[in-house]
Amino acid sequence: MNFASDNIVGASAPVLQAIMQANAGAMAAYSNDEISKRVKARFNEIFEREVSVFFVTTGTAANALALSSAVPPYGLCVCHQEAHIIDDECGAPEFFMHGAKLAGLPGMGAKLKSDEVAAYLQGLPKAVKQMPPKALSVSQVTECGMVYALDEIAALGAVCREHGLSFHMDGARFVNALVALGCTPAEMTWKRGVDILSFGATKNGGLMAEAIVVFRPDLAEALDYRSKRAGQIISKGRLIAAQFEGYFADDHWLENARHANRMAKLLSEGLSGLSGVRLGWPTQANEVFPIIPQALDRALKAAGILYNSWTEISLPESERVGADEALIRLVTSWATREEDVRRLLEIASSEVSRQAAE
Amino acid sequence: MNFASDNIVGASAPVLQAIMQANAGAMAAYSNDEISKRVKARFNEIFEREVSVFFVTTGTAANALALSSAVPPYGLCVCHQEAHIIDDECGAPEFFMHGAKLAGLPGMGAKLKSDEVAAYLQGLPKAVKQMPPKALSVSQVTECGMVYALDEIAALGAVCREHGLSFHMDGARFVNALVALGCTPAEMTWKRGVDILSFGATKNGGLMAEAIVVFRPDLAEALDYRSKRAGQIISKGRLIAAQFEGYFADDHWLENARHANRMAKLLSEGLSGLSGVRLGWPTQANEVFPIIPQALDRALKAAGILYNSWTEISLPESERVGADEALIRLVTSWATREEDVRRLLEIASSEVSRQAAE
Amino acid sequence: MNFASDNIVGASAPVLQAIMQANAGAMAAYSNDEISKRVKARFNEIFEREVSVFFVTTGTAANALALSSAVPPYGLCVCHQEAHIIDDECGAPEFFMHGAKLAGLPGMGAKLKSDEVAAYLQGLPKAVKQMPPKALSVSQVTECGMVYALDEIAALGAVCREHGLSFHMDGARFVNALVALGCTPAEMTWKRGVDILSFGATKNGGLMAEAIVVFRPDLAEALDYRSKRAGQIISKGRLIAAQFEGYFADDHWLENARHANRMAKLLSEGLSGLSGVRLGWPTQANEVFPIIPQALDRALKAAGILYNSWTEISLPESERVGADEALIRLVTSWATREEDVRRLLEIASSEVSRQAAE
Amino acid sequence: MNFASDNIVGASAPVLQAIMQANAGAMAAYSNDEISKRVKARFNEIFEREVSVFFVTTGTAANALALSSAVPPYGLCVCHQEAHIIDDECGAPEFFMHGAKLAGLPGMGAKLKSDEVAAYLQGLPKAVKQMPPKALSVSQVTECGMVYALDEIAALGAVCREHGLSFHMDGARFVNALVALGCTPAEMTWKRGVDILSFGATKNGGLMAEAIVVFRPDLAEALDYRSKRAGQIISKGRLIAAQFEGYFADDHWLENARHANRMAKLLSEGLSGLSGVRLGWPTQANEVFPIIPQALDRALKAAGILYNSWTEISLPESERVGADEALIRLVTSWATREEDVRRLLEIASSEVSRQAAE
Repeated sequence: MNFASDNIVGASAPVLQAIMQANAGAMAAYSNDEISKRVKARFNEIFEREVSVFFVTTGTAANALALSSAVPPYGLCVCHQEAHIIDDECGAPEFFMHGAKLAGLPGMGAKLKSDEVAAYLQGLPKAVKQMPPKALSVSQVTECGMVYALDEIAALGAVCREHGLSFHMDGARFVNALVALGCTPAEMTWKRGVDILSFGATKNGGLMAEAIVVFRPDLAEALDYRSKRAGQIISKGRLIAAQFEGYFADDHWLENARHANRMAKLLSEGLSGLSGVRLGWPTQANEVFPIIPQALDRALKAAGILYNSWTEISLPESERVGADEALIRLVTSWATREEDVRRLLEIASSEVSRQAAE
Repeated sequence: MNFASDNIVGASAPVLQAIMQANAGAMAAYSNDEISKRVKARFNEIFEREVSVFFVTTGTAANALALSSAVPPYGLCVCHQEAHIIDDECGAPEFFMHGAKLAGLPGMGAKLKSDEVAAYLQGLPKAVKQMPPKALSVSQVTECGMVYALDEIAALGAVCREHGLSFHMDGARFVNALVALGCTPAEMTWKRGVDILSFGATKNGGLMAEAIVVFRPDLAEALDYRSKRAGQIISKGRLIAAQFEGYFADDHWLENARHANRMAKLLSEGLSGLSGVRLGWPTQANEVFPIIPQALDRALKAAGILYNSWTEISLPESERVGADEALIRLVTSWATREEDVRRLLEIASSEVSRQAAE
Repeated sequence: MNFASDNIVGASAPVLQAIMQANAGAMAAYSNDEISKRVKARFNEIFEREVSVFFVTTGTAANALALSSAVPPYGLCVCHQEAHIIDDECGAPEFFMHGAKLAGLPGMGAKLKSDEVAAYLQGLPKAVKQMPPKALSVSQVTECGMVYALDEIAALGAVCREHGLSFHMDGARFVNALVALGCTPAEMTWKRGVDILSFGATKNGGLMAEAIVVFRPDLAEALDYRSKRAGQIISKGRLIAAQFEGYFADDHWLENARHANRMAKLLSEGLSGLSGVRLGWPTQANEVFPIIPQALDRALKAAGILYNSWTEISLPESERVGADEALIRLVTSWATREEDVRRLLEIASSEVSRQAAE
Repeated sequence: MNFASDNIVGASAPVLQAIMQANAGAMAAYSNDEISKRVKARFNEIFEREVSVFFVTTGTAANALALSSAVPPYGLCVCHQEAHIIDDECGAPEFFMHGAKLAGLPGMGAKLKSDEVAAYLQGLPKAVKQMPPKALSVSQVTECGMVYALDEIAALGAVCREHGLSFHMDGARFVNALVALGCTPAEMTWKRGVDILSFGATKNGGLMAEAIVVFRPDLAEALDYRSKRAGQIISKGRLIAAQFEGYFADDHWLENARHANRMAKLLSEGLSGLSGVRLGWPTQANEVFPIIPQALDRALKAAGILYNSWTEISLPESERVGADEALIRLVTSWATREEDVRRLLEIASSEVSRQAAE
């Protein structure tokens, strides 16, 4: 039972099938093929407008490339202090942005509040010693499994426009947020002020398929050059495009995310029902962050269940993790089996009873 | 009939099969899986020694990452003036090397001569205004389809050692050179002084599978960090590794290259037998560079045969392309069908006869 | 009366005199002249060992160049969250380090505690997503006017050695700290584990004269190339060197710093004696950070006294600035006149009395 | 007798005098002072329009900063293959441009021809593998001592506009060209299409005083940030500005250049009159490039005359340097004494007679 992440399984059947089909025969290299063209048109439909799409193979590359076209080398990019771009990418954004700086702000559940971002921006020194802020980046779903509401995104978008910042969304779990909100991709992005999006598919059924979706043409201008010089333009590019074709067909992408979220809800409700267990943050997508007794932590691990512990930095003061507690992260995916979730819950519940009995 | 490149077809059956198999079930992400470990061990066998292996998805990334660990930002990297790294990668090496410079030297058939490299290095000003040379990069197979002989590689390796340069080999078509020379991977690389290798598999049957193979431990030290910050560490890394597993099994990689070279030889002999047709450079691997009458060029294109024209910059003075001639490149691959080669030759030969008759 | 900074006055007479003298006649350019050689030898004497010295024109360049040779592009540099390098240089270190990251830790008076640095380093994830720590940088004098004691420097040096970090000291006010501690340059640097030093002279009497002093030969290797490509090698370099010659002659540099510190002490004692006035941090060099009533702040400004307000981020919890208070910084220099200090104190004291009388 | 360069002497008396005067008293740091404001206004007069001016301390910094605002990291900058920026700055432009590439074209006398530049630009592949050309940089005076005529500058400016390139002029010897052409600064720059200029003063009487003069506002936007992060904003900036004040007063800058050019003319006519001596390129400013018998070369050196040999790469085919000849460079400056020139000529002429007599 592996709840360590949603990138530990391979591609889903439809995605794999699409690769098989696209593999046959000769086609133009470097995404100049028919499949890539079809898929780019499909993105226009999905986002209800003309968008520019660039395929890459990792979320790190998607984020770093997107930011490199929004932030000049002397600029500042504001994000949450726990953001994936600042914590988990070994400096890829700084590399692609040529030394531009990431400024990490605090915020409960790894969410940024528009008024706090505005206050931070107003407080920056107006002097040449201060790198000028050029972009804001948010993660939807956040690193604590929370989902920005549409009006929260709109409020952040308004701050960006007011201060002349580009607005980037790290959508490594874009679809999980989308189905959680029950809105359209357009409503969750450009209609709320998002300028450029890292659109993840790998965690939700892709083999290796991420896309940068650009809503502001000026940000798309040089991305093909930037992508090439980053070694991100795949020669057999049709085989990235094909994954998206399989991904989008018959709402497969939405189904995968709904399943993952459903499994997380099941897990979340089951665990939070146990005495001595509470949630660090509400379960809004496909990640559960329970605070559990250390004895239970040991028991789950002893049962061979794989998952990671998490940092409490974005917990509300009132929710600090106790000395005999552990904050853990359980991630579900399109491939998570309900029986595994139920087994985990049984193990947890019997362990809790056993402890109570002692 | 598509002879434009060897990256226009998908993956070969065994490679695709390997992906299918590796796709099932959950495994550790970021190449910490069993398959990746197995494949890295396989590289040790293939190169008859302990090597460090880093998987990436493009040849550009392999070259740029390899060079970034051999050349500091203030350093110089010597290569041929037609090298892929200087001409075809939109500045990826300069990006990854943080502004280090590529110095392109001339040479027939896109080959560097050891004495000319040595003379160039000796001639460099000994002053702080001069970026110090830190690496030499050669392409095996070269951009003109030629193959460095083992003693030529050894001679270049000796120059590198004498001048304190790291020696990089761009092996986008590594196997095509290998089977052409009939030697072992070890003999063509570290036994001749090569320190770091871009090992290509994509053009010879892979889906997207390139590897950086490092023979000098100090050059491998930081490559995992560099790779991560370049967005090149694939989360489902086992599916890159799996391609190599399929690739290496039962000499599949060698068979593919032998077939591609054989097809090139067939094409080369057929074409050079026609009156008015000569070869720009000898056919040594899987690329043919005939100089043909422009009328024949038009006829081949009219017949729907796809291929590219080429630059004469690396032709010997005596072989300059005439006003009514065209220098073209025909590339064969593991997927090239002998019947297509024969049809091309028939079309060419009948066209040449037709012209003679006029 | 200008207490805004110690770089608002020109060069001191002996420094200016030295420039005049060195200006005559023809000499080799780019610091290959006799004066530069003499001054470099002088640095060896001053630091009681062989050191490598590189002249630059700004403290920002000195810091950024020094760090660029200690931290690779994928590395992390630990410093205080208020450090000049992270706050006041518009990303120069990130530029020169090619995207390496600065990690700012908290600490009272802008000082880092060795045990807290050690704890931070131990807590870093051991994973490729984490940029590896490569250097520690401290400011002596700190941004809050405090001076590291010799054993504090030694303790930080020990942490650096234990964790394989290079140890950089930003000595923009090096001499002010030196005379405050009453030790030798050697005792305050390499004898306590410092590997590379930004040695400032501009604030203490120079025209534009900063030097990078390197104690670990490997860190000096490429600094001439790095300096040249940063546009920091002055063609008439002897005129930077000459400033140091005038600076070091007859203990001029020490005298200047002693005067500046004495003026600060006078100011500090006078102000802290006034009711309603306290010091944010102890006055240890040539900067005074009083917390004063806002009415007094207004009165001083009304009297035409120039100075800056400061941030309370590095104040101890117990010392927070009240709603009707202001934290200000008063900087003294070699050129500060005692009469100006006394006049400021008179103005302040009469204002405080006036307020009491109300 | 030192003819090695025009940066081997110190500052001229008026410049030094101006530094002395500006040194007294306290003024705002970082070029926010009155003198800097005055001098910037003076630049507007000199260029007959509103310009943006940024002071730096080296020509390398001026060039690299100027180019960094004209060329994005993925772009190409076209220049002559002997340009100072490509040959003599240890990769500073590539560093400041974050990996953008310099493409060096050939041209007699280190001059670029507009039709050849246009042909080069048209010939570039229209593909993502090709870094897009973004700027053209010329040296006025060129590295071979030649001066672009006004219509030649205009023709290059037209090519830049047609191809969307920014036009940079490296004016390390700007005034020497100016007085040679007898035109105004405006006529030699923006009126002919130049967008951004490296305006050198150091070689012509400054201590360390270079300026970036920007004619296109968009290129000036971020230069203050770029300059700060490059460590080029001097804290006592008024002392750079002051040099320009002394430099511009009473046509001092023009007089200095006229003298230097006159000395070069004298030298040039004297040497070219000697049998066996010819000029590699016409003497148009303050540099003389005679091709002399090696015996004469030895004799001049034996007489203690300092100068450098030069490369023949930009000589016309017909003028190649013979086996017993040497191509040398003699540089004159504002400080060159006519008696030294005459002594050099006597030595040369008697040596030539002596040889003839043998």
